Amino acid sequence: MAKVSVIGAGSWGTALALLLSKNGHDVTMWSILEDEIRMLDKEREHKSKLPGVKLPDTMKFTTDLKEAVEGKDFLVLAVPSTFTRGTAKNMCPYVAEGQIIVDVAKGIEEATLMTLSQQIEDEIPQADVAVLSGPSHAEEVGRGLPTTVVVGAKTEKTAEYLQQMFASEVFRVYTSPDMLGMELGGSLKNVIALAAGIADGMGYGDNTKAALITRGIAEIARLGVKMGGAVETFSGLTGIGDLIVTCASVHSRNRKAGYLMGQGKSMQEAMDEVQMVVEGVYSAKAAVKLGEKYGVSLPIINKVSEVLFDGKDPKEAVNELMLRDNKAEHTALPWEK
Amino acid sequence: MAKVSVIGAGSWGTALALLLSKNGHDVTMWSILEDEIRMLDKEREHKSKLPGVKLPDTMKFTTDLKEAVEGKDFLVLAVPSTFTRGTAKNMCPYVAEGQIIVDVAKGIEEATLMTLSQQIEDEIPQADVAVLSGPSHAEEVGRGLPTTVVVGAKTEKTAEYLQQMFASEVFRVYTSPDMLGMELGGSLKNVIALAAGIADGMGYGDNTKAALITRGIAEIARLGVKMGGAVETFSGLTGIGDLIVTCASVHSRNRKAGYLMGQGKSMQEAMDEVQMVVEGVYSAKAAVKLGEKYGVSLPIINKVSEVLFDGKDPKEAVNELMLRDNKAEHTALPWEK
Repeated sequence: MAKVSVIGAGSWGTALALLLSKNGHDVTMWSILEDEIRMLDKEREHKSKLPGVKLPDTMKFTTDLKEAVEGKDFLVLAVPSTFTRGTAKNMCPYVAEGQIIVDVAKGIEEATLMTLSQQIEDEIPQADVAVLSGPSHAEEVGRGLPTTVVVGAKTEKTAEYLQQMFASEVFRVYTSPDMLGMELGGSLKNVIALAAGIADGMGYGDNTKAALITRGIAEIARLGVKMGGAVETFSGLTGIGDLIVTCASVHSRNRKAGYLMGQGKSMQEAMDEVQMVVEGVYSAKAAVKLGEKYGVSLPIINKVSEVLFDGKDPKEAVNELMLRDNKAEHTALPWEK
Repeated sequence: MAKVSVIGAGSWGTALALLLSKNGHDVTMWSILEDEIRMLDKEREHKSKLPGVKLPDTMKFTTDLKEAVEGKDFLVLAVPSTFTRGTAKNMCPYVAEGQIIVDVAKGIEEATLMTLSQQIEDEIPQADVAVLSGPSHAEEVGRGLPTTVVVGAKTEKTAEYLQQMFASEVFRVYTSPDMLGMELGGSLKNVIALAAGIADGMGYGDNTKAALITRGIAEIARLGVKMGGAVETFSGLTGIGDLIVTCASVHSRNRKAGYLMGQGKSMQEAMDEVQMVVEGVYSAKAAVKLGEKYGVSLPIINKVSEVLFDGKDPKEAVNELMLRDNKAEHTALPWEK
């Protein structure tokens, strides 16, 4: 049994806290919001974020970050990506040398182009930072439906330790040393989910969507490999797997915002209607910058960016994508003479 | 303008005949069924296979195989996989040296473990055999929705010729020299579609399905690479792309048969209810044989086979998959020491 704190009480943090608790660990949840902690402690259920999923009486709740961090075997950092750096900064004084922090959110900081684990390491140099990612709707994990994820860490020892902690008969955990590839795939997939949503909104079919997903992950992989990620990661659970779940889901905010734009709404109108943070809009900016910085062609991501920020007509964007120069699918493969 | 015949008048053959005709080619369709050819000639529409899609007056129809084959710049072979060898045998006397035949069906012959292009080459040694595959519901291509496919051929010249013939503003064509990888992915994906259907039928969610899709293509890739295919192909349009379309579709017979089995029906009951050929059932047998022959571990495909042929309870099969030994996602990636 390990002592664990989950920092952040959104749907994903709550689902993982329940999973760890069911695995027999001593789990504390932290939130910055007094009301949220009071509600969780009293109701033993996150009424708005993960309704219908009961939390055990043994789970503890606190708004005290020192209490949450100190003396824990590992920490799960589950705050939204825009709060990751700030929360890490606040945690730093209490984090012990070599204490394990598993980040479970996704995103790239537009100003620095850093992934979340890089930001955490920046703020808490003494921590052993790891990541957990994969095709995993929080609602389904909360309901105990079979799910697979990957834990990425620098050392095999940390990765296998976390694998043991999280694994259960409904939660299969693979390990990987490629944290960078995992985080790039997880963040940039949201831009492709926007594209898939736009195509759906325009009334296009499964063929178009499958093409966007497949060629979308191919361009993310081109960029990721240039940045130092492993090509295998992008065809794995945290790459194509997570992208498939996002593009298939009717719950995805990214897909939904795209859908509204495909039906003719502007980015702002779509964002207003979805009424939540649409991660893909921020990731699109970071992705375009990364493509320029590393000299990688990102045709789908660039078209999404034009639709989002330059008022480009989605239909024209799709036509331009379809009518580019004829190409080989994988230019490295040799032909018979 | 090229002279083309499409051999086989199912939904996919009809959709491709229309596409080629719209591209300005002189198109003849052949079917063995007198009634079908009469109906097509009179109605200019395939009422049962591709309803609502009008065929142009310039298109010709015949049941005479000699007439269909001779003097054509290339042939599209679009008969169901179980008729491929027989049709190729009948075509052989009329096929000129170096005449191009593009196969657009998918399957593996259980007795010989040969792909369709290998069977065609076996029967028509003088032909230049190519393949066309990718995420492409015939109904959507018939309706002109944006679609991407790959043409595989032995030489770049043949591949680029066919790319020119098929490409349009709604049909983007990539080329590849990896015919074997394309055909293995396209055939074996049906077994994974059965697995995805079973999971849906059991009431599992998107997480489970994305896991089956992602880990399913990973095991197909392991086998395909051992057989001589290129690893890139399996993460491309004819691999994961085609698998995504099949698993997402409510029309897929493989997914539907799986769904019924997930709800507790036997394989025979499911086949009876779907009332059509379920390709994945045959492919599962071939896949298990291939795994044994090449010494490759195929955990998902083997479990599907046990459910299909050994009466294994699907729930038990999923549990066994989830609870295997803990693993790294990609065993080749190195760790920090």
